[in-house]
Amino acid sequence: MNSITYQEAAEFLRAQDHYLILTHKRPDGDTIGCAAALCRGLRALGKTAHICPGTGETHLFTPYLEGLLAPADYEPETVVSVDIAARGLFTAQGEKCLARGIDLAIDHHPSQEFFARKTCVDAGRAACGELIYDILKELGAVTAEMAVPLYVAISTDTGCFQYSNTTAGTHRIVAELMDTGLDVFPLNKRHFRTKSWARLQVERLIVERMHRYENGTLAVAIVSRNLLQEAGATEEDLEDIAAFLGQIEGVETSVTIRELEEGRCKLSVRTSGGLNANAACALLGGGGHAAAAGCTVDGTLEEAEKAILDAIGQVRGHA
Amino acid sequence: MNSITYQEAAEFLRAQDHYLILTHKRPDGDTIGCAAALCRGLRALGKTAHICPGTGETHLFTPYLEGLLAPADYEPETVVSVDIAARGLFTAQGEKCLARGIDLAIDHHPSQEFFARKTCVDAGRAACGELIYDILKELGAVTAEMAVPLYVAISTDTGCFQYSNTTAGTHRIVAELMDTGLDVFPLNKRHFRTKSWARLQVERLIVERMHRYENGTLAVAIVSRNLLQEAGATEEDLEDIAAFLGQIEGVETSVTIRELEEGRCKLSVRTSGGLNANAACALLGGGGHAAAAGCTVDGTLEEAEKAILDAIGQVRGHA
Repeated sequence: MNSITYQEAAEFLRAQDHYLILTHKRPDGDTIGCAAALCRGLRALGKTAHICPGTGETHLFTPYLEGLLAPADYEPETVVSVDIAARGLFTAQGEKCLARGIDLAIDHHPSQEFFARKTCVDAGRAACGELIYDILKELGAVTAEMAVPLYVAISTDTGCFQYSNTTAGTHRIVAELMDTGLDVFPLNKRHFRTKSWARLQVERLIVERMHRYENGTLAVAIVSRNLLQEAGATEEDLEDIAAFLGQIEGVETSVTIRELEEGRCKLSVRTSGGLNANAACALLGGGGHAAAAGCTVDGTLEEAEKAILDAIGQVRGHA
Repeated sequence: MNSITYQEAAEFLRAQDHYLILTHKRPDGDTIGCAAALCRGLRALGKTAHICPGTGETHLFTPYLEGLLAPADYEPETVVSVDIAARGLFTAQGEKCLARGIDLAIDHHPSQEFFARKTCVDAGRAACGELIYDILKELGAVTAEMAVPLYVAISTDTGCFQYSNTTAGTHRIVAELMDTGLDVFPLNKRHFRTKSWARLQVERLIVERMHRYENGTLAVAIVSRNLLQEAGATEEDLEDIAAFLGQIEGVETSVTIRELEEGRCKLSVRTSGGLNANAACALLGGGGHAAAAGCTVDGTLEEAEKAILDAIGQVRGHA
């Protein structure tokens, strides 16, 4: 399947009207920021545009959608998905549009399934927000009110320009967004320098109860249901918790074991050293990438820990 | 006193030779990165250039100085300081040059004391590294080997582009540095995504023992000598610890009380709400800025806490 260029996507958007914009389920800053910026950009061009309701509540990102959600009786003519790679990632409300057909998918995932009539995908972009920026710029529609959601999209998908997906192009787009008068500090404070009380307790309890092996190069976080209860934590407080131990100096392999229910644990393995996390998790019926993989194990936290340590030893040829 | 332009600074550097470059005491990424980039840039132009030894050891930043420190018998003709705002900020070895005279000071602090024969200062720059970049670019000397220390300078002084000093110009310079082939990921991992084991323990113990007041809007960290011993922490593990509690959702005022010795405590106050931290600390003989101030109190940790809570109450007009 072929992708159209961002100029062709812009041309299409200029020609059509009555837009409905779809975000992916378990929304992040990129999908929400893209939807908000595109919706505002289309409205600035005089088009009717709304975002599909039922995006999935998150107290961090849904405020950006204020005033942009479609009324119940809205009849769209043109449906556009942003940052959605696969059919399985539509929200419940978005799925209804799948049957009708998606007119344009704008995305940056290499795993894009080409489910739409037209697809504009560029896997070289750190965030889908970079593509939306180029499209809106092509349409001559970028103003300060779009700069906020676009900055949220791009900064959150790059870990505030820390991840390896960040390119020179990413920084150039942010410079142009800041030229519109965008004040990035409150956004950075909100998304990168704020932790909930419960998250702080989760981290404290993980550090207190973690296990270290092999001179501190292998670290294991034990996230029991008790720990989460003690911390008062909800799912939202656990965002990217599998990356937490990887920040410790000297840690090359980190394992996060989460007790899902009595006798059932979910394991995440992250490596920066030589170990193939995918190979270790595959031995327990899971999988993923060389640097990040996962699996689910039937057993207690202790049994799950023993299982993954054995699997890691086996991959290393120690077994 | 007047500043010369960065073009004039470049002209001066092109005309002279046999450089010694001075960094400030308690070195950070900006002063070290500036010195390393400038030294490499001058060498690329065929000049003799070295950095003054005795920069002050830090395991994070001194590796960037490898191969650049002046031999003991080096006789410089031209002395340049980078990121040094005041006479009081020279290292012991750098102070010897103060008597002889500094030929050129390159800096970005509004508090620049104009101690040098020529001064190139721009307080609108997030990092001195931005100025060094412009000077090296003017000299046609920017290559990939300068991009690493310049990125370290700029990214560390902006908290990886999160602080309010970050401008569109900051992002433009980083884009140009990345155009040289710079791989930012290992640098970001090293400087922004790595914590020492001892630092992690300090944070754990602070969270465990902190006090919260006024529905969690006021938070107090108690950093006793016992806590530091228990964590195995050295001075290097306490970098920017006064900012730690400010990240907690809902906290508007945070106080960090550090026990310096028996009966003597150092207090740091950070605010994001309405409280004037400077006014509160001034009541205890200290001072600073509205959003960040400090003071030293004679007394136990408990007495110091009571003193600052009283001072905060007084400033708010509750007393």
